[in-house]
Amino acid sequence: SVNPDLGSERQTASFSVERLTALLDGGTEQTRIRRAVVEAIESDPVFSRENQYFQTQNERYEAAVRKAVHLQKKMHEMGWTENGPEYKYIYRALSGDVAFLLHRVFMRSISVLGSDRQIAKWIPLATQHKIIGSYAQTELGHGTYLQGLETTAVFDTATQEFILNTPKISAMKWWPGDMGRSATHTVVFAQLYIHGKCYGIHPFIVQLRSLQDHSLCPGVTAGDIGPKMNFEHIDNGYLLLKNVRVPRENMLSKFCEVRPDGTYVRQGSQQINYFTMTTVRISLISDEVLIPLKKACTIAIRYSVVRRQSKLKPGEQEAKILDYQTQQEKLLPQLAAAYAFHFTNDYLQELFDRGYREIQRKNFDMLPELHALSSGFKAMITQHCTAGVEICLRACGGHGYSLLSGLPSLYTKILASCIYEGENTILLLQTARFLIKCFMAASAGQPVPPSVTYLAAVKHGKCPAKNKLDFLSPDIYTEAYQHVAVRLTSSTAAKLQDLIQSGVKKHDAWNQCTVQLVQAAKAHCHYIAVKNFAETVEKLETKAGVQKIMKHLCDLFALHGIFSNTGAFLHDGYTSAAQMDMVTAAYLDLLAVIRKDAVPLVDAFDFTDQSLLSALGSYDGQVYQRLYEWAQKSPTNQMSPAYERYLKPLLHNTLSKL
Amino acid sequence: SVNPDLGSERQTASFSVERLTALLDGGTEQTRIRRAVVEAIESDPVFSRENQYFQTQNERYEAAVRKAVHLQKKMHEMGWTENGPEYKYIYRALSGDVAFLLHRVFMRSISVLGSDRQIAKWIPLATQHKIIGSYAQTELGHGTYLQGLETTAVFDTATQEFILNTPKISAMKWWPGDMGRSATHTVVFAQLYIHGKCYGIHPFIVQLRSLQDHSLCPGVTAGDIGPKMNFEHIDNGYLLLKNVRVPRENMLSKFCEVRPDGTYVRQGSQQINYFTMTTVRISLISDEVLIPLKKACTIAIRYSVVRRQSKLKPGEQEAKILDYQTQQEKLLPQLAAAYAFHFTNDYLQELFDRGYREIQRKNFDMLPELHALSSGFKAMITQHCTAGVEICLRACGGHGYSLLSGLPSLYTKILASCIYEGENTILLLQTARFLIKCFMAASAGQPVPPSVTYLAAVKHGKCPAKNKLDFLSPDIYTEAYQHVAVRLTSSTAAKLQDLIQSGVKKHDAWNQCTVQLVQAAKAHCHYIAVKNFAETVEKLETKAGVQKIMKHLCDLFALHGIFSNTGAFLHDGYTSAAQMDMVTAAYLDLLAVIRKDAVPLVDAFDFTDQSLLSALGSYDGQVYQRLYEWAQKSPTNQMSPAYERYLKPLLHNTLSKL
Repeated sequence: SVNPDLGSERQTASFSVERLTALLDGGTEQTRIRRAVVEAIESDPVFSRENQYFQTQNERYEAAVRKAVHLQKKMHEMGWTENGPEYKYIYRALSGDVAFLLHRVFMRSISVLGSDRQIAKWIPLATQHKIIGSYAQTELGHGTYLQGLETTAVFDTATQEFILNTPKISAMKWWPGDMGRSATHTVVFAQLYIHGKCYGIHPFIVQLRSLQDHSLCPGVTAGDIGPKMNFEHIDNGYLLLKNVRVPRENMLSKFCEVRPDGTYVRQGSQQINYFTMTTVRISLISDEVLIPLKKACTIAIRYSVVRRQSKLKPGEQEAKILDYQTQQEKLLPQLAAAYAFHFTNDYLQELFDRGYREIQRKNFDMLPELHALSSGFKAMITQHCTAGVEICLRACGGHGYSLLSGLPSLYTKILASCIYEGENTILLLQTARFLIKCFMAASAGQPVPPSVTYLAAVKHGKCPAKNKLDFLSPDIYTEAYQHVAVRLTSSTAAKLQDLIQSGVKKHDAWNQCTVQLVQAAKAHCHYIAVKNFAETVEKLETKAGVQKIMKHLCDLFALHGIFSNTGAFLHDGYTSAAQMDMVTAAYLDLLAVIRKDAVPLVDAFDFTDQSLLSALGSYDGQVYQRLYEWAQKSPTNQMSPAYERYLKPLLHNTLSKL
Repeated sequence: SVNPDLGSERQTASFSVERLTALLDGGTEQTRIRRAVVEAIESDPVFSRENQYFQTQNERYEAAVRKAVHLQKKMHEMGWTENGPEYKYIYRALSGDVAFLLHRVFMRSISVLGSDRQIAKWIPLATQHKIIGSYAQTELGHGTYLQGLETTAVFDTATQEFILNTPKISAMKWWPGDMGRSATHTVVFAQLYIHGKCYGIHPFIVQLRSLQDHSLCPGVTAGDIGPKMNFEHIDNGYLLLKNVRVPRENMLSKFCEVRPDGTYVRQGSQQINYFTMTTVRISLISDEVLIPLKKACTIAIRYSVVRRQSKLKPGEQEAKILDYQTQQEKLLPQLAAAYAFHFTNDYLQELFDRGYREIQRKNFDMLPELHALSSGFKAMITQHCTAGVEICLRACGGHGYSLLSGLPSLYTKILASCIYEGENTILLLQTARFLIKCFMAASAGQPVPPSVTYLAAVKHGKCPAKNKLDFLSPDIYTEAYQHVAVRLTSSTAAKLQDLIQSGVKKHDAWNQCTVQLVQAAKAHCHYIAVKNFAETVEKLETKAGVQKIMKHLCDLFALHGIFSNTGAFLHDGYTSAAQMDMVTAAYLDLLAVIRKDAVPLVDAFDFTDQSLLSALGSYDGQVYQRLYEWAQKSPTNQMSPAYERYLKPLLHNTLSKL
């Protein structure tokens, strides 16, 4: 039975939830396929996550391996293939709680970086799981800056082998998933040396463990890096190599080859390869970043209509906490962001599909823009969504702090997305470098890529809004965002030039501008996200109330961004103080409007109770019952030796000497 | 041996680290006593935290109980007493990782709320640990709003007993520490009923477990609430009461008594009691909030001079990451905040000591101001420090994400401080209520408490700064903060009045202003923190360079606050855009200045390696060696059954049907 406080929220939806779900999925057929996958996975007890919050890191790892192995059978059984329409829903249905994710990266790196011969040899072995692969790039002392990697691979012409070594402790591979305990092979990135000359970073296939008994190969030291904030199910590993020899054929050689005599040959274009790395940043947004935020919103919003606290009106019963303006102001902007970034992701996917087609036609013109967008949006979206999940957690008070709420594990997991696949600050600076370059080009009248043509049109106007309703006009707020992005880019470009002209060296000048460059990159991405949301809303069908509620969310997303960062808009007087008061009023009004549809808006994400794994967020809203029943199963309710050992002697005053 | 990259940072300190440590401790004698306690605790293997990051929740609980019991012996052995000068350092030296913290709250509540007779009976039992106490206030469905508690205590004149019940599931006690597994007794807060009439919330001593065998008493259901983000060492518990009878004497009766015939008598003043609850919020700031931030700064800053990444100047070796402006901008404001709030805490302690003296002289005039300050600063400081620890964690990239960095556990622990002892948003609204009241009084020419007299002096001036150096003048920035606090308070008061005058009901009007009221309360506290820091610096001795570096930190704290919230200062034109550019320039300049003393500034916090428990933050900076050695000891490097069970059948292709 559904908690009536939650049930009543669903009766007043202003739009069709099922229609909105279909919009998010990309069509009703997609929704059908997704639900079928979820049903098949969730009805299979091997994939159960029920005990997850009670398990140790070792237990989590074992369960993830078990699931990964079982998944092979399941796919066979269900007729699912890696190229089928179901595939993209499997990982989501498992909530990512499965091993061998790096095995796929291993295969992809061979496909992209390997010669046809290497692909023919290794891919079938990996596909049939005769080997388990990993991907060993990051080192203890080296992350995003790949040129700094210290592992060496020295070519020995006598034996036609590469000799791999970890010359010092900071060169130890550190973090690769699946490597700590599972993998038999890995792709090691190392500095290539031939006849004493360094040729830079290259990839080598290295066997780590025996295929017979899984013992470590000679010269290989490997293990697990220990406890982390999350990802307990993954055996992130370390790897030390001591004179490990691999045959010449094990250097992945699509782009570079070492001939038997030690001649180094570069062949083909690596640009498609850079593009692949760029797309990884985009591909993680949907599953690793948007889903956690959508889940957190679902949990926090459902809880906030079930939880009652304090009286809003004297004499009435305690109020639902979502009826407090402060609670709305915490949660509803996160909900709006979840929708905004959902559509940003659609935009990026489409852009990258187009880019891929162009690149296949050997047209690499889009690469710099795609790199800048993927870097900036990876950073911006992971940052916003991580902050959003944290806000949802904190908005649930003490119960949010219990692992049983589901929120802590969403937070600790999404947090990692700010760090992996390029640390966010570094990525934003790459976007900023592109912006500055394009701004200079545009100022000089040269052509620039589509996403930055707006930089050329520097206007010194004022925001034309006359009353708070004007701020519900996408033209008004989109233009304000555009103005801020142009201002921050141009003023930082000016500072940079001033510094250089005053004699500061170029790299020092750049460093002295980085705090402001980061701001400019964020403003650029924020502008595009707002603009894209507004354009998406415009194109939606007006039936079933979907467009109307999406318009409200788009307005909220835009106005929240202004309200939270008023200085950027006030700075040069583009927006006046009086207009900012209108923004505040319009923004606060919107909270009350969207609050009415808050539950239907999270229902549309269509998460099952099993995938939420939350005592606070279940569809029926039976929060307290669920917390109590679940807590009783905790291992902390088993008999503890602490009583006999410590408490009893203390209470019975039999502690020696006391 | 100290890592040379760290060692060199210490050679150029502009001030005496030892002198600064003494300043933070409150004198050299205090430093001596603190170090002696730390030495005694850390040299005792029972108090070791070495395996903490590898332990399960059960193991953590058992270790905490063991330590708590051992601490009794230790104190006896060392001659430490609860009233001695060493006492306040013991908890810090144990990093709070010990059981029976609620036992002390149990005792304090009896001392404060109990009659002399009750104190004489229960306190000796508790002091000698013949019983172990807890404090059962919060319920599954009720937290900060105490009037909503649902547990009932019905007086039975026939037997002279109270009958305690949990009428529904939301009334179940939930969260009390030490209650899940350890406590024999607790103080239960329940709605008192006599002859069918409700007299509101009262405290009752209830026995939970047998003193013989620790089994639950009849009618009592209790256990552990399960996994949480942190506090694994504490057995936070649940409690269901079914017709549990306690004698009439068990209602704590200093302020209210139930006579044998059921007559309810109120006696004495409860104001001193409210004051006690208020002081708890202040007392937690030092140990639970400032120490985690100071530790996080120590770890992140030491790591940032050891970690090198990418090249700042072409041709040079990779740069220390603290040399990047963006890294400075992440960490140094957190360091400044740690110092700022250290002095805020000194200010509050002094104020509360004075308040206590006044209240003992039956002068309760200071109570509203003290309540407002304790609420606002508890919220503001926990919020800033939690955000600060998170920034430190993220600034350490992948290694910060490892539990071995020490940062994740600091974060997950400090996060709870935003929720317990009053949820922050609710607390800020209490401060805001006080501000609005005082603003109205001041506007009407009535006298107001000292901390808010500034509200009366509304000035419509402009910031007088002419160049960036002017923003290093405390008068300039303190006045800017004051101006913003006045503006936000007065504008929200005006909005509130407008709404009410336009016919909106008072409680609705209040709710519609709460987002802005929260802003006003924050601005008020921020202003006082800045002002207090500036005044503290002024009074410091000028010797040994301490005053000079503290002045820099004070400037940074103030300018960071403006830089991060420019809209508040720009809004009404008090600060112009040109002045804001000066703020930005002065702020960025300061980062480079303070960066030089960053390591000595964290060394002055004087944390031992054992108390930091961090592979990244140790005094010698041997980061990589420590990570590697520590990871090898992780239980995840023991043999796993996963190979035989799942991996071997997969690799050997013996999975049935595949």
